[in-house]
Amino acid sequence: MAVGRPARARQASRELDGAAAPPLPAGPWLEVGDRPRAAAAPPRPVIGAVRPQVDGGRYPAKAAIGDFVAVEADVFVDGHDELSCVLLYAHAAERSWSRAPLRALGNDRWQGGFPVHALGDHHFVIQAAPDPFASWRRDLRARVAVHEDLSGELAVGAALLEEAAERAGATERALLLEAAGALRRAPGRLRAPVDASPLPGGDGTVGGLVFDELLAELVRRHPDPDQVTSSQTFAVRVEPELARFGTWYELFPRSASPDPSRPGTLADVEARLGYLAHLGIDVLYLPPIHPIGRTHRKGPDGAPTAGPDDPGSPWAIGADEGGHTAVHPDLGTLADFDRLVAAAAEHGIAVALDLAFQCSPDHPWVRQHPEWFRHRPDGSIRYAENPPKKYEDIYPFDFDTPAWRDLWLALLDVVRFWIDRGVKVFRVDNPHTKPFPFWEWLIREVKGEHPEVIFLAEAFTRPKVMQHLAKLGFSQSYTYFAWRSAKWELEQYFTELTRTEVADYFRPNLWPNTPDILTDELQFGGTPAFVARLVLAATLGASYGIYGPAFELGEHVAREAGSEEYRGSEKYAVRHWDLERPDSLAELVARVNRIRRDHPALHHDSTLRFHHVDNDQLIAYSKTHLVEEPRYLGPQPAHEPREPDVVVVVVNLDHHHVQSGWVDLDLGVLGLPPDGPYLMHDLLTDARFEWRGPHNFVRLDPAVV
Amino acid sequence: MAVGRPARARQASRELDGAAAPPLPAGPWLEVGDRPRAAAAPPRPVIGAVRPQVDGGRYPAKAAIGDFVAVEADVFVDGHDELSCVLLYAHAAERSWSRAPLRALGNDRWQGGFPVHALGDHHFVIQAAPDPFASWRRDLRARVAVHEDLSGELAVGAALLEEAAERAGATERALLLEAAGALRRAPGRLRAPVDASPLPGGDGTVGGLVFDELLAELVRRHPDPDQVTSSQTFAVRVEPELARFGTWYELFPRSASPDPSRPGTLADVEARLGYLAHLGIDVLYLPPIHPIGRTHRKGPDGAPTAGPDDPGSPWAIGADEGGHTAVHPDLGTLADFDRLVAAAAEHGIAVALDLAFQCSPDHPWVRQHPEWFRHRPDGSIRYAENPPKKYEDIYPFDFDTPAWRDLWLALLDVVRFWIDRGVKVFRVDNPHTKPFPFWEWLIREVKGEHPEVIFLAEAFTRPKVMQHLAKLGFSQSYTYFAWRSAKWELEQYFTELTRTEVADYFRPNLWPNTPDILTDELQFGGTPAFVARLVLAATLGASYGIYGPAFELGEHVAREAGSEEYRGSEKYAVRHWDLERPDSLAELVARVNRIRRDHPALHHDSTLRFHHVDNDQLIAYSKTHLVEEPRYLGPQPAHEPREPDVVVVVVNLDHHHVQSGWVDLDLGVLGLPPDGPYLMHDLLTDARFEWRGPHNFVRLDPAVV
Repeated sequence: MAVGRPARARQASRELDGAAAPPLPAGPWLEVGDRPRAAAAPPRPVIGAVRPQVDGGRYPAKAAIGDFVAVEADVFVDGHDELSCVLLYAHAAERSWSRAPLRALGNDRWQGGFPVHALGDHHFVIQAAPDPFASWRRDLRARVAVHEDLSGELAVGAALLEEAAERAGATERALLLEAAGALRRAPGRLRAPVDASPLPGGDGTVGGLVFDELLAELVRRHPDPDQVTSSQTFAVRVEPELARFGTWYELFPRSASPDPSRPGTLADVEARLGYLAHLGIDVLYLPPIHPIGRTHRKGPDGAPTAGPDDPGSPWAIGADEGGHTAVHPDLGTLADFDRLVAAAAEHGIAVALDLAFQCSPDHPWVRQHPEWFRHRPDGSIRYAENPPKKYEDIYPFDFDTPAWRDLWLALLDVVRFWIDRGVKVFRVDNPHTKPFPFWEWLIREVKGEHPEVIFLAEAFTRPKVMQHLAKLGFSQSYTYFAWRSAKWELEQYFTELTRTEVADYFRPNLWPNTPDILTDELQFGGTPAFVARLVLAATLGASYGIYGPAFELGEHVAREAGSEEYRGSEKYAVRHWDLERPDSLAELVARVNRIRRDHPALHHDSTLRFHHVDNDQLIAYSKTHLVEEPRYLGPQPAHEPREPDVVVVVVNLDHHHVQSGWVDLDLGVLGLPPDGPYLMHDLLTDARFEWRGPHNFVRLDPAVV
Repeated sequence: MAVGRPARARQASRELDGAAAPPLPAGPWLEVGDRPRAAAAPPRPVIGAVRPQVDGGRYPAKAAIGDFVAVEADVFVDGHDELSCVLLYAHAAERSWSRAPLRALGNDRWQGGFPVHALGDHHFVIQAAPDPFASWRRDLRARVAVHEDLSGELAVGAALLEEAAERAGATERALLLEAAGALRRAPGRLRAPVDASPLPGGDGTVGGLVFDELLAELVRRHPDPDQVTSSQTFAVRVEPELARFGTWYELFPRSASPDPSRPGTLADVEARLGYLAHLGIDVLYLPPIHPIGRTHRKGPDGAPTAGPDDPGSPWAIGADEGGHTAVHPDLGTLADFDRLVAAAAEHGIAVALDLAFQCSPDHPWVRQHPEWFRHRPDGSIRYAENPPKKYEDIYPFDFDTPAWRDLWLALLDVVRFWIDRGVKVFRVDNPHTKPFPFWEWLIREVKGEHPEVIFLAEAFTRPKVMQHLAKLGFSQSYTYFAWRSAKWELEQYFTELTRTEVADYFRPNLWPNTPDILTDELQFGGTPAFVARLVLAATLGASYGIYGPAFELGEHVAREAGSEEYRGSEKYAVRHWDLERPDSLAELVARVNRIRRDHPALHHDSTLRFHHVDNDQLIAYSKTHLVEEPRYLGPQPAHEPREPDVVVVVVNLDHHHVQSGWVDLDLGVLGLPPDGPYLMHDLLTDARFEWRGPHNFVRLDPAVV
């Protein structure tokens, strides 16, 4: 860890003073930021309302590797000139821009996009210029139709070709000058439609030459640089596909023992990897695995005092045995951890650690760096408080301490420590109680070295704060999903998350339960509630997770009435779970996750659409993966040749009664004709139904899984 | 006109290369742009989604003099700290910021505002800082409630006061230190609620001191500068009230003669001012009054050739007698014009001229400055075309000519010429066919010298182009109103114009007719159509206008079926109008405009709300001027003590049949209780009705005015 530290520290300190914009490559039109010649009038096109963008380009938008990033903008110019628009894009490490066309959608909206095949920040710029040759061609067509004498006009077109030739390289110049010459030699009167009379001295025709699309494109590539308008530069941060699509599973290693007589260890977790792989898990998230403080340790169910054998909360990090880079001795050793990470990788499972940036009073840093904490007038360190509530087992950091640089770098080094041991996924505990600039800096630093790393923000707080953390760089975010039960709430919330500009930067990760969240619905809804919430999470969200084995074993008893805490919470106690219980939902979880993997439509959230059902207890929605030009949908899987995939989900939100109703599918959204029959394949039961047209009947019994 | 020209030209040229941001004054918190000390961690609050703003601050928002400019922003910080937010604002010419509080609206939205009493650009900035003293007070209240020992906490509060004292001036410092001392001497245990025990050695009480609002405000004024976040600086352009509220009237001076045997003159227009004042007109807009070209002059109804006595289109500007700064000899002299402007001013009427930046082939500039126009390969100047249509009587300027600086400055000088003769209002002809950068520059130049000048954009084109012209600085814009007939179209369009961010910069000016626009509705709706469209324009829009006397005299015959051109259009012919005709709507126009002047609710568009009617042929809406704290409504009249004013409008959109229905008023919007009775005063008939609750019956007969 100490290797290279001074150099890294210097670099980080420099960054802390304000990151410079990355240098941008030169482009095929204009170097971005190039000023037109002062002698020329300012360029006339206007570019605005670019998407994706986050706060006017202040933060990068998000995409996953392999995505096609759809880009849109308003582009227009005064008068009646035709416009030419291009999209320039480049990976931050590239020295030159790639170029993609933009096409007009109507109402001055233009669209294009680019595929992303590398991790890290990409930049894009939109450039627009009047296209006088295209305007000339449009007008010429109208002139031919009324039999105008074109002698003058053909010379105008020739002059435009000659001007483009001056700006072109040798080969293109020759082609353009040849075409110009042909126009200058052509007769002054053409016939409509497009004249086919042979060009004097050539083997083409006048009309064929004038309306040749390759010629038009050749001219378009060499606009007058004085007339080119450039948008600002926007960034898109490309992350692994796991940032967009994955199934998470949280478990407490100390409860992973198969032997009820002893607590679990990292080795026990390793032994459980086969089970998790069978469930279809992609990310195994472990609560903090570090030594736990003894001072003011919490007892069972969060009692203010602990007995001698109570293990304490894993979030009270740090003891004599070490702090954020140590493994709790009861769980094993760093070598055990390394073995777990390697074994998990063999199962295709990433191990995620918890970044809980706080200390128990026994954390080594409390003695080594008292200046990293807040103090009372009597010199004692302030524990966490939400007056009158006290959390005496937790010392928060003082992120504004005069020694903030040392503290921030030490925390960065914690992340680097675990990355060096193979951890690429971090769940960040309560990021909203640490400064925003800290996260922006930390994530930028880590991503600069390791663009493959993923951060999940565990912030259950006000919407704008959650959104801001996502803007700062968190790859994924916990959501309000657990508390959205009614159809209207689910529709409203997931429409906001997937259909507004929030989708450009905020990736939801849906959890029906967590160790802190046992909702009323799960407490009182029985198995049907667990089934419904699993299906909703797994299909509304490309990323979702469960806290197990509590989830698949239907754990549902609260600490007391009105509480969302589990009775006998694993946060404060060692639990033992019988994975073999016949009522386990493990097979259902496995089946749902197999369906997720098999269906690319479920690998992203951008195509989520709700469909009407005439029963408020039934919710219906679809996700699609169609073979067509992408309309603006935010980042989405790239449109390589593929099979179209359509998934329709109907869920009974009533956990106690059979519900039925007429589903009113928007068949256009599904790529289906308005009235033909189509086969519906029930992926859970493997049954098949023939449906016809938009209106079809559904009946769902909560007692039948 | 030549006086000072060289200096102006230099200044303008400099501006053309890119306007520098105006210098900003120092503020009570931080100089904007000041960097916190490098040694401190970055400030933690976040400020975003500021309104009003146009394209992220790229363009100024709009307000009228006397308005209260409501300002809103998202402001939040990590954790649980209380925040303090201030709004700093200043006229561009002021050397220091004024300060206004922002209050929390909930969901991290904050609101404040500032009154504007001077023309020209104003700037505002939002600053936010954690307020540790407020957080401490909040926590202390909770601690007192559970009887904590407060000795330590009172010392913490004292330290916060002492820190603020270090940043305060001498007087405030003394007050803060005195309070700090009292806290340090206070007993360590207070009673809940607020302790009233006398402070040792003082005559106040501990609780009284701690929770004194003035003390809190005193601390709030001296935050740690390292912790202050500043938004970017936003601009609000303040224009005369006439930019927000006014009645316009367009007439052709050559048709203003009371004597059918001769064309009208400017002197005839002067003689008609009494009539216009009676109608309640604020702005008299004249189509171009300049010499008209003879080459390719258009004949009656736009015929391609003119007879010897045909007067031609006023928009074919320029002849031997002069160009854009000359008066057509048939209309009179510059002295006549001056007299008209002066006489109009005595009637409270502003004379508006037409800025039609194009030339007839006979314009002096065609000979003097051929380089300002486009040329064909044969050297001839290009006339206006929309192939295959030709407009041979019009030469457009080439705004991109290498001599663009000279051209642009010459056009600016045209505007200055008329301003110097007392013209403060300009209607700009087809601004969307000239470059956007030209308008942004020209309006900025003019407004810099004459912030009282108003520009109306006559751009009937695509929505984004019309919006962009408004962003660039046009005070007002023509709209699609003339073609919005159905209830749903009117509701949708005016909701967009008044309730979205478009309202921050786009001020609609509503015209039921113009010399170019005789809608189907007016052609075939009879007098009821004229009445309905008048009432809609005058009440949906704080600014509206009519083209008269065609409007009040019900002129409705089109040139041919399917055309929106008038038969015998005044654009190409002299007309005579009998103002005394018994069917003239002049008295109705006068009455409507009196109602407009009497009712401040009709002086702005920001409170426009539509109400439901169970009949699609009846439209109902309201405007209000209530005595309350302003919610964010865009610029609006300042909230001085005043009478509340509520106007409800119900219009029958069916010009042929009686229509009736139940109006469903949103009484909360009107400031009325949900069920009580209230008096409705019919301002057109002076009848009075008692209504009760939200549901009331309305019956409107198009035959009865």
